[in-house]
Amino acid sequence: MIDLDKLVSESFSKQGLMATLGAHLTQVSDGEVHIALPFSTALSQQHGYVHAGAITSVVDSACGYAALTKAPAGFEVVTAEFKINFLRPAVGERFLAIGKVQNAGRLLTICSGEVQAFMGGSGKVIALMQATIVSVGNPPDRGQTPHGV
Amino acid sequence: MIDLDKLVSESFSKQGLMATLGAHLTQVSDGEVHIALPFSTALSQQHGYVHAGAITSVVDSACGYAALTKAPAGFEVVTAEFKINFLRPAVGERFLAIGKVQNAGRLLTICSGEVQAFMGGSGKVIALMQATIVSVGNPPDRGQTPHGV
Amino acid sequence: MIDLDKLVSESFSKQGLMATLGAHLTQVSDGEVHIALPFSTALSQQHGYVHAGAITSVVDSACGYAALTKAPAGFEVVTAEFKINFLRPAVGERFLAIGKVQNAGRLLTICSGEVQAFMGGSGKVIALMQATIVSVGNPPDRGQTPHGV
Amino acid sequence: MIDLDKLVSESFSKQGLMATLGAHLTQVSDGEVHIALPFSTALSQQHGYVHAGAITSVVDSACGYAALTKAPAGFEVVTAEFKINFLRPAVGERFLAIGKVQNAGRLLTICSGEVQAFMGGSGKVIALMQATIVSVGNPPDRGQTPHGV
Repeated sequence: MIDLDKLVSESFSKQGLMATLGAHLTQVSDGEVHIALPFSTALSQQHGYVHAGAITSVVDSACGYAALTKAPAGFEVVTAEFKINFLRPAVGERFLAIGKVQNAGRLLTICSGEVQAFMGGSGKVIALMQATIVSVGNPPDRGQTPHGV
Repeated sequence: MIDLDKLVSESFSKQGLMATLGAHLTQVSDGEVHIALPFSTALSQQHGYVHAGAITSVVDSACGYAALTKAPAGFEVVTAEFKINFLRPAVGERFLAIGKVQNAGRLLTICSGEVQAFMGGSGKVIALMQATIVSVGNPPDRGQTPHGV
Repeated sequence: MIDLDKLVSESFSKQGLMATLGAHLTQVSDGEVHIALPFSTALSQQHGYVHAGAITSVVDSACGYAALTKAPAGFEVVTAEFKINFLRPAVGERFLAIGKVQNAGRLLTICSGEVQAFMGGSGKVIALMQATIVSVGNPPDRGQTPHGV
Repeated sequence: MIDLDKLVSESFSKQGLMATLGAHLTQVSDGEVHIALPFSTALSQQHGYVHAGAITSVVDSACGYAALTKAPAGFEVVTAEFKINFLRPAVGERFLAIGKVQNAGRLLTICSGEVQAFMGGSGKVIALMQATIVSVGNPPDRGQTPHGV
């Protein structure tokens, strides 16, 4: 049986961008992954809020890893595309990105993503994503090109 | 007359995320903005390519600033939503994100975005974005809550 | 107090396309609208399944009317944009499109949509939508142009 | 050599929905397909304009068939997902949907779509689509279940 937590955390630790943004993995379960992102001025847009790109990056990773928990053993996943709506400004002390598998097909996995902003104890949804993830049979380092396969 | 280059570059310089990613503004014209991103391992996903989130961040900013060049004087812009397709892995020495206004309405501006990857002299399109940007009349520090860029 | 059922059903009855497709309104509540679509060969794609466009049309209407139930009195709604994923072929005797408001802003309302296909008693989700709806204060027949406002 | 016009027009003639909407194929070339849609009250939304769903249906078919012209011989195509922005109301005597391949991968083909509305001689772009089309190797009647187009 696959150790999902190990599978995801090993891959996550190789994502230089997640370290650069200060994001960390907080939960891995079958079909659902959570990633936390503390506020930092290094992530800001021009008004001091967190940039939509940083928010998008963490929820993209959360969706991709949610898909990975449902992929056949030995498969990799790559994001084919996503769409994201920003409901309100990314104002908060910390953010939580949640990726969930909605449908896992043989080839394409559809995920929904959500980002919550927390200020003190209470959270608000600030972004909603819908993503299409491709399962790739051959590891990319053997010559396969994961995107746009 | 508005100095578009000044308008965009002053706002860009306040985006902490762009500095964190190592991105810089390379061209501002009426309805079109270019942002360059050199490769760095600090931007990687698990296979060493540039993470989709970093690619998305720069093309989101390029689309937002393209919209800003078309916005009425004194207006701010915020990203309402976007969709992005990844055509191939983000492999390259440097990347160029191009945002172009397709239609500037009174309230909503529709932009298309493209990211090219360069290895040596030749470039390839690696991502395509379609974005909806909102023009906001009141500066955010007077109680308006824009979201996104 | 607004009679939501009356508000939505009067508008729905003016949508020529819904009659052409054979769709009918089955539920209106605050923030959620259901539209049913029976199978017909008049809606087919080349393999005899229901065309993605017919599926999209009914869930677009369901999302738009869900947004209308949350709009200020006297406001109209128009679809700014949406994204839809098709999870499996539209095979079934009847289809049910469900639109739900996820966030109702002053200007933009974000809805999620889902289409279920029924064969006998059991249903399966075949499509997922994420839509952005604009609230328009002036009725379009008074010179306002609802889309791309 | 494949007769692209024959390939597309034979499939198009089986799409019951296109006949129901009154759409017809006007151009097929390598990587680009045009579909025309005359105005009809049978296609209306509540204000008498053409419903976003009818506009979406024809540009979805145009994108799908553009992808088909680039698919390997014997392959079918199905729409995995798309996103569409509506720039202005669908007001016109006739509409032209144009689907173009932006990138044809082994598995996924990315298309851009555009719909123009014509009143008298002049046309205006009213909608922009970005679509992901899947190439399916096994004909659907042999047990494969494509979705979409």
